[in-house]
Amino acid sequence: MALNNSALNHTVRLTARPIGEPKRSDFAFADEPLNALADGQMLLKVHYLSLDPAMRGWMNEGKSYIAPVGLGDVMRSGGIGEVVESRHPKFAVGDFVSGMTNVQTYYVTDGKGFAKIDPTLAPLTTYLNVLGMPGMTAYWGLMDVGAPKAGETVVVSGAAGAVGATVGQIAKIKGCRVVGIAGGQEKCDYAVNTLGFDACVDYKAGDIRKSLKAACPDGIDVYFDNVGGEILDVVLTQINLKARIIICGAISQYNNTTPIKGPSNYLSLLVNRARMEGIVVFDYAHKYKEAAIEMGGYLAAGKMVSKEHVVDGIDTFPETLMKLFKGENFGKLVLKVV
Amino acid sequence: MALNNSALNHTVRLTARPIGEPKRSDFAFADEPLNALADGQMLLKVHYLSLDPAMRGWMNEGKSYIAPVGLGDVMRSGGIGEVVESRHPKFAVGDFVSGMTNVQTYYVTDGKGFAKIDPTLAPLTTYLNVLGMPGMTAYWGLMDVGAPKAGETVVVSGAAGAVGATVGQIAKIKGCRVVGIAGGQEKCDYAVNTLGFDACVDYKAGDIRKSLKAACPDGIDVYFDNVGGEILDVVLTQINLKARIIICGAISQYNNTTPIKGPSNYLSLLVNRARMEGIVVFDYAHKYKEAAIEMGGYLAAGKMVSKEHVVDGIDTFPETLMKLFKGENFGKLVLKVV
Repeated sequence: MALNNSALNHTVRLTARPIGEPKRSDFAFADEPLNALADGQMLLKVHYLSLDPAMRGWMNEGKSYIAPVGLGDVMRSGGIGEVVESRHPKFAVGDFVSGMTNVQTYYVTDGKGFAKIDPTLAPLTTYLNVLGMPGMTAYWGLMDVGAPKAGETVVVSGAAGAVGATVGQIAKIKGCRVVGIAGGQEKCDYAVNTLGFDACVDYKAGDIRKSLKAACPDGIDVYFDNVGGEILDVVLTQINLKARIIICGAISQYNNTTPIKGPSNYLSLLVNRARMEGIVVFDYAHKYKEAAIEMGGYLAAGKMVSKEHVVDGIDTFPETLMKLFKGENFGKLVLKVV
Repeated sequence: MALNNSALNHTVRLTARPIGEPKRSDFAFADEPLNALADGQMLLKVHYLSLDPAMRGWMNEGKSYIAPVGLGDVMRSGGIGEVVESRHPKFAVGDFVSGMTNVQTYYVTDGKGFAKIDPTLAPLTTYLNVLGMPGMTAYWGLMDVGAPKAGETVVVSGAAGAVGATVGQIAKIKGCRVVGIAGGQEKCDYAVNTLGFDACVDYKAGDIRKSLKAACPDGIDVYFDNVGGEILDVVLTQINLKARIIICGAISQYNNTTPIKGPSNYLSLLVNRARMEGIVVFDYAHKYKEAAIEMGGYLAAGKMVSKEHVVDGIDTFPETLMKLFKGENFGKLVLKVV
């Protein structure tokens, strides 16, 4: 059970707080010796890392829903690990687990926050997507805050991204008209043809105000916002009475060096007695299982797709992360470690 | 029962859509002959008019929660009238009524939207304040959208205004810590000493960020926003988890000729899983009576104050309305017609 003593942990540490877009020089890459396990600990070999827009926020100083990554610390990341050594009573060598592995090749942990996953039920990367945080965010944000009713129009931005794709697929299953917003014809075609959305607006092509209006002839009842900025403002002009806007993220604003652009049209909330509400997935931890069982069923039945965009190599972390902000990922962005 | 034939209706008509602040030249003032009553109609002599920030929006073209005032139409306004002639089965000469009288000295109406009021229970102007639209807005916005719990901190802007004063007084009665935001020491003293607020921040004096923080040591659970702009942005930085922000108005933005300033800090809704929701009082029409009975009881018991700022003379309408936007009113702004 003892690990080969020559194994080193390859780490990616945050060494500077990025200004604007994160750069390679904001990180340090090193091989570090591994500590021997204490009782109650296990050693994980990290297979996959989840790259998420929220990571950008974790690099900033200051109060948020979670503490920032400390300077000099291994960059925080969710991931999938394999237990390769264990002195933990509940985890055995060969188990696969999901949790915050951080950006490194090995992790010594007491197991807190890690859950076993079953690699025979779904590919490992699915547990970073539909059956992981993005899926939970999509499910609970849509169902708890958005509370869509069959027949309503649900619009989701970042439609080809991890959260957006799942939001739209759930909304379709629940009987809604689903309209995506994505960048480029390829992503829009994917949303309609593969994910089954009713329509998808390419925000890079033409007047989004007009194309959204055409795609939502009955107005917008639920908007799941992953992007903020100009798109949020356009949506606000097309919401219906009692609309619900789920604020999940604002990827268009995360690398701003100027103040964030607030939604100028927010008074549409007043005119339409509408609601804008933020969600953080961790609040639903006690309900993850419920959503995973439901969505696992959809996946098994072929009613839902979990698409991951896998990039190889832990050292590509800074550049691969930037794909999210450039809209270059197509599906849930995952970094393959081994 | 016939009206003196020499009586003329003095009207204030909207003749131009104001750009920025409304000006006298945007209105026409005239004496017009009165039509004879048809069956089912009554003639009201208008005593008082309610001047409200929302009037500014009604002067603009474009979709809102209510149609704009047409060019050439008598300016829309709530008011208190006395029935001076009646061919209506339900209203008799001598009755006092509340409803949309518009800015004129007489009004021929079929009675639709008018409700009788009892001048022996409260002064007439109270029916334009605590027992009228501002009171209903305050009560239902706070209770239905804000849903404050005893012990929570409720902040209200425009604290000495018609809606704000009532919001704060209700919140105090419901057991909350109440902090007002108002312009000037006199209004703040009034909020604390007369209305019974726990504290009031003078936004014209010093750093509002610091003074609000000092007044809300436990953070902000409910914010009732009448002003928008910078103050909304400051509040967003101090809200608690699961905070509720009621968007009732944005008086700081109504005369903008540039785009409205959206709340740059709206992502605090995400961080705090908080909610921002608009209200329009008309949605609660079926519940006005319930709130009026409750607040009438507080007024009678001396637990609540209804303060009106009465200005004399219908022809002062444009300048008197501007008092709202300059913060020159102290209490609910009312125009005395006769």
